[in-house]
Amino acid sequence: MIVAMQEHASEDQIQSVTERLLELGFKVHRTTGTVQTILAGVGTPAAFDVKDFQVLDGVADAYRISSPYKLAGRSFRPEGTVLHFPNGVTVGDKEVVVMAGPCSVESREQIFSAAEKVKAAGAKFLRGGAFKPRSSPYSFQGMGLEGLKLLREVGNSTGLLIISEVMEISQIELMMPYVDVFQVGARNMQNFNLLRELGQVRKPVLLKRGIAATIEELLLSAEYILSGGNYEVMLCERGIRTFETYTRNTMDISAIPVIKKLSHLPILGDPSHGVGLRDKVPAMARAAVAAGADGLLIEVHPNPDKAVSDGAQTLFPEQFSKLMQELRVIASAVERTID
Amino acid sequence: MIVAMQEHASEDQIQSVTERLLELGFKVHRTTGTVQTILAGVGTPAAFDVKDFQVLDGVADAYRISSPYKLAGRSFRPEGTVLHFPNGVTVGDKEVVVMAGPCSVESREQIFSAAEKVKAAGAKFLRGGAFKPRSSPYSFQGMGLEGLKLLREVGNSTGLLIISEVMEISQIELMMPYVDVFQVGARNMQNFNLLRELGQVRKPVLLKRGIAATIEELLLSAEYILSGGNYEVMLCERGIRTFETYTRNTMDISAIPVIKKLSHLPILGDPSHGVGLRDKVPAMARAAVAAGADGLLIEVHPNPDKAVSDGAQTLFPEQFSKLMQELRVIASAVERTID
Amino acid sequence: MIVAMQEHASEDQIQSVTERLLELGFKVHRTTGTVQTILAGVGTPAAFDVKDFQVLDGVADAYRISSPYKLAGRSFRPEGTVLHFPNGVTVGDKEVVVMAGPCSVESREQIFSAAEKVKAAGAKFLRGGAFKPRSSPYSFQGMGLEGLKLLREVGNSTGLLIISEVMEISQIELMMPYVDVFQVGARNMQNFNLLRELGQVRKPVLLKRGIAATIEELLLSAEYILSGGNYEVMLCERGIRTFETYTRNTMDISAIPVIKKLSHLPILGDPSHGVGLRDKVPAMARAAVAAGADGLLIEVHPNPDKAVSDGAQTLFPEQFSKLMQELRVIASAVERTID
Amino acid sequence: MIVAMQEHASEDQIQSVTERLLELGFKVHRTTGTVQTILAGVGTPAAFDVKDFQVLDGVADAYRISSPYKLAGRSFRPEGTVLHFPNGVTVGDKEVVVMAGPCSVESREQIFSAAEKVKAAGAKFLRGGAFKPRSSPYSFQGMGLEGLKLLREVGNSTGLLIISEVMEISQIELMMPYVDVFQVGARNMQNFNLLRELGQVRKPVLLKRGIAATIEELLLSAEYILSGGNYEVMLCERGIRTFETYTRNTMDISAIPVIKKLSHLPILGDPSHGVGLRDKVPAMARAAVAAGADGLLIEVHPNPDKAVSDGAQTLFPEQFSKLMQELRVIASAVERTID
Repeated sequence: MIVAMQEHASEDQIQSVTERLLELGFKVHRTTGTVQTILAGVGTPAAFDVKDFQVLDGVADAYRISSPYKLAGRSFRPEGTVLHFPNGVTVGDKEVVVMAGPCSVESREQIFSAAEKVKAAGAKFLRGGAFKPRSSPYSFQGMGLEGLKLLREVGNSTGLLIISEVMEISQIELMMPYVDVFQVGARNMQNFNLLRELGQVRKPVLLKRGIAATIEELLLSAEYILSGGNYEVMLCERGIRTFETYTRNTMDISAIPVIKKLSHLPILGDPSHGVGLRDKVPAMARAAVAAGADGLLIEVHPNPDKAVSDGAQTLFPEQFSKLMQELRVIASAVERTID
Repeated sequence: MIVAMQEHASEDQIQSVTERLLELGFKVHRTTGTVQTILAGVGTPAAFDVKDFQVLDGVADAYRISSPYKLAGRSFRPEGTVLHFPNGVTVGDKEVVVMAGPCSVESREQIFSAAEKVKAAGAKFLRGGAFKPRSSPYSFQGMGLEGLKLLREVGNSTGLLIISEVMEISQIELMMPYVDVFQVGARNMQNFNLLRELGQVRKPVLLKRGIAATIEELLLSAEYILSGGNYEVMLCERGIRTFETYTRNTMDISAIPVIKKLSHLPILGDPSHGVGLRDKVPAMARAAVAAGADGLLIEVHPNPDKAVSDGAQTLFPEQFSKLMQELRVIASAVERTID
Repeated sequence: MIVAMQEHASEDQIQSVTERLLELGFKVHRTTGTVQTILAGVGTPAAFDVKDFQVLDGVADAYRISSPYKLAGRSFRPEGTVLHFPNGVTVGDKEVVVMAGPCSVESREQIFSAAEKVKAAGAKFLRGGAFKPRSSPYSFQGMGLEGLKLLREVGNSTGLLIISEVMEISQIELMMPYVDVFQVGARNMQNFNLLRELGQVRKPVLLKRGIAATIEELLLSAEYILSGGNYEVMLCERGIRTFETYTRNTMDISAIPVIKKLSHLPILGDPSHGVGLRDKVPAMARAAVAAGADGLLIEVHPNPDKAVSDGAQTLFPEQFSKLMQELRVIASAVERTID
Repeated sequence: MIVAMQEHASEDQIQSVTERLLELGFKVHRTTGTVQTILAGVGTPAAFDVKDFQVLDGVADAYRISSPYKLAGRSFRPEGTVLHFPNGVTVGDKEVVVMAGPCSVESREQIFSAAEKVKAAGAKFLRGGAFKPRSSPYSFQGMGLEGLKLLREVGNSTGLLIISEVMEISQIELMMPYVDVFQVGARNMQNFNLLRELGQVRKPVLLKRGIAATIEELLLSAEYILSGGNYEVMLCERGIRTFETYTRNTMDISAIPVIKKLSHLPILGDPSHGVGLRDKVPAMARAAVAAGADGLLIEVHPNPDKAVSDGAQTLFPEQFSKLMQELRVIASAVERTID
């Protein structure tokens, strides 16, 4: 940490800050300028809050110079993390993996029809919610266990891998036999109790960025899972909240190259939630792949106009097929592949 | 709901939208202009998504005209909700209630010292975290059960009411004997499973606005608790995330008069989290009361520079005493009182 | 416009709103529900403010249903606007046009070197600032007229078209002989006096979106130019301001497909300002083309580390060459071409 | 400036950064840790861009430690700036000055009626626009010179001081005989050519914060005026753009105490634009004074429902009178006065 003292700070103030740094376990190097003194705290104490220094008497400003996450940082695994799934499916390698399916599991017929269509177009994972976080208590809240069973059945019969959202600790055990990947939604990105439990699980986790979360906070949330011992983590950009209201969210495409540099974890994009408008989803899916995403989550429904949730941002199967063809060309431009 | 068709939308498109409205349970009134047709859906179906209409063929735009929350709306209880606590303490009435104390319970000595000081200055509630949501897994996570016991003990001995944060369903039962109010933090404002459980509890809940939550979303989250049967809900503005980085958050003071109009629930302000900088907290506390807040949450610690968490935004006891005197004058300007 | 009256609004209130609508030139259609009355104002008065209706007694909410811009809207020219430049260069047609060059014109040697390199890689326009908007009065403010002359000279000798920023009305006449396109920067997007003057000019204008401007406001600003009689307008997305601080701005890639639908005007992307970090610029350039942009503005400098302004976001010539090759593949995926 | 090198950066990289610092005029102090080297650049070169260092090879991060503004900073005039006007009116002293009046000058009758009412309630300045920045070219653009003459006439007859908005350089000379204060609106906060010209003028300037401007950017814009020699500058918070849509803007009340600390310039609040809804304006006006504002700008119109612009956020005269009484009590709580 660096502490820049105010111009003409007193020697007492400088000493007091120095002692605080030493207490935390830093070694302190002092640079005494003609008008301003700078204290460099060298070392990496487990946890400290840079704001505590910013309010000390005589301090102009303080800066953290080490990143607050360790296991999620690129330097922990410079070559990048690759997740391996059955049937040779990988995430984080050359292949750009596509996870597609409806927002919610609604019925046996619906989920089998969706699975067949997304598989035919080239998806490797089937997505579908059994537990649904809904802003209104009066909206459809998901089929629950019954939905999970349908997902497993369609997964077994098609060979598609299954990803579904976990909202609460007690659902982890319930979902365990049915899913291949636990999805943590944007609203739970800082549900730290849930993250800690997922750190104990031996199954991959896809962690979505919260709509108001900085990239650093996303990596710190991943750190909760990693520090529990579960290293099978994928990240996902799905739109942040801005002042623009035409789109549901503003999909932060730049988060993709930024996270690629800061972290070794795979980063996917979710254009359906990112933009929230069906006719803009293909453009954003293409943009994510062009920017280097390791994969995509896309909402596809056999009949979006009748979907019980998120219909407005869900692709028709034919739109999805066409999109997959465009994505193959774009993947080739960035030295990636899509089956 | 209102659906404005595009100029020169076809009769087929108009019919198709009309049918969707009827299916949802709306009665439909049609206004046929020379260039544009407008469909008014009259009635209040339980739940529907205006976005599903915005993407239909031939639709220019669609607007929800009824509010999506019912029990949280002002019209449900026009006179306003007043919560009654022991010792004649009320929230939502003339009195502006002040809840003060440290971010975290750290030790017996610390919490007793804090309690004594905030009580002397006029606080009615003691705040203090036993379970702490921290963005880094390496930060102090709270004293847990031991902290709860200390809170209850100091509450009993001083007569201060106790408010503390619940982060997870399993903590509800654990906390039940120890707290007078459950606090739901900003990060859990859309932890719907937790909210639903708190709807079953017979104890008041203070619900904080998420840093990226609209006022409407805050009221919908309150609706989760109310619709479970727990009507003892207080809301709290504690800062939203904006582009400005000088302050930790931007405290949305205007949310106070806005919520006063939209809802019957009391609305408090938390200037400590709202601004995040100790020397700005008094100004924001005064602003909140001037704008009509029903109460305040303020972080106060016997020795903020040694606090294990949030020290930078925590008041010294003397600052808090001085502030309380200023607040009494301001309360009088808006026909409120502080003991 | 639609006005939804509050439940049980009085007949007097309904009449009063009706009269205001009539005064503005609307025809009024009334839908009387059992609890709520809806007034549809049909017609398109020149200008009105929907907020004036939202505060009237008895009004629940009011919605504008016609777009506030006319000439900038897609329906004004459904086939899209194509700008034609010398040497067969077009903007808005199949070709994705690339405008590249340094942030500022710094010297004869620098601008000739930059021009040669961007031309070799496939750029059609040379960009370079002679007048620079700088947030600090102590920063380099541009070479002014001398810079313009250098731009014209290098344009003539290379065949590159010239685009440069105009900051102020008095500069329009000054720049007229030297540039092929006037660029209006983000900070001047709502400098309405300047826009009005540019509506009188017979030379194309590239209008950048302000960092806090909605897409609707961008189109309204274009309307200022179009309504003066200058129809040669291009729009440009160059990043909006959000809470994320890792990048300089958040480039709103979704604005590209949104504007394509709402307007007939070409829409370009500026990844250099959009993200502000050199090593992320290629990813964002690829994303913009994948999302359907009609062109790109990219900062390229013979020696970015010595650039007097914006060096951190400026590409080395070799990076630009490599990027252009990737862009050609991506353009083909969206049925576009780059020479 | 501080440059933190990456862990294990090479000696060559360290040397290269050191040279760049020396070139800019810094003295360099080096701290060599076991894993990380830190370079402190001591001194204050006229202008440099911290981002240029962030992208250099081997650099982890770079921090500016001196503020980029000088004349606007508190240390330039620690006792604070007080502006003196005729009739003993001051801004920046004990008195909280109130500037009130309609958004636009509409007619002789309207402006005289408004002036009489705001004066009776205690306002010292009359505000009113003669040139209006409007997002749509089809909206009323102001009465121009005729409006200015009316303002001067009513100012002379009532003794109210006159403040009106300047949008463009050519208007400065035109307005000079008619106004007591030039107002620069939010949209022109970074119209640097205009600011520079106002630095040459011998008349006070009120500079409003842009809706997406950081506090630092506001102070840098003030620096443009100050560095031209005009030290009579007042700042004004009038709302920033956030994701919340219920209010027109989010008024950043915390900017008031922040600016009080960072700068010696008076800081006012504009609750009318800050919140944009008439019935919320009084609450925000009270909040601004409670937070320490040196003054207020408030829109008041004899008949807001008939106002040609901004009617929805404009107070009725009776509301304004009542508000002024509340403000007097609040001012006393913060050791200020309102006549």
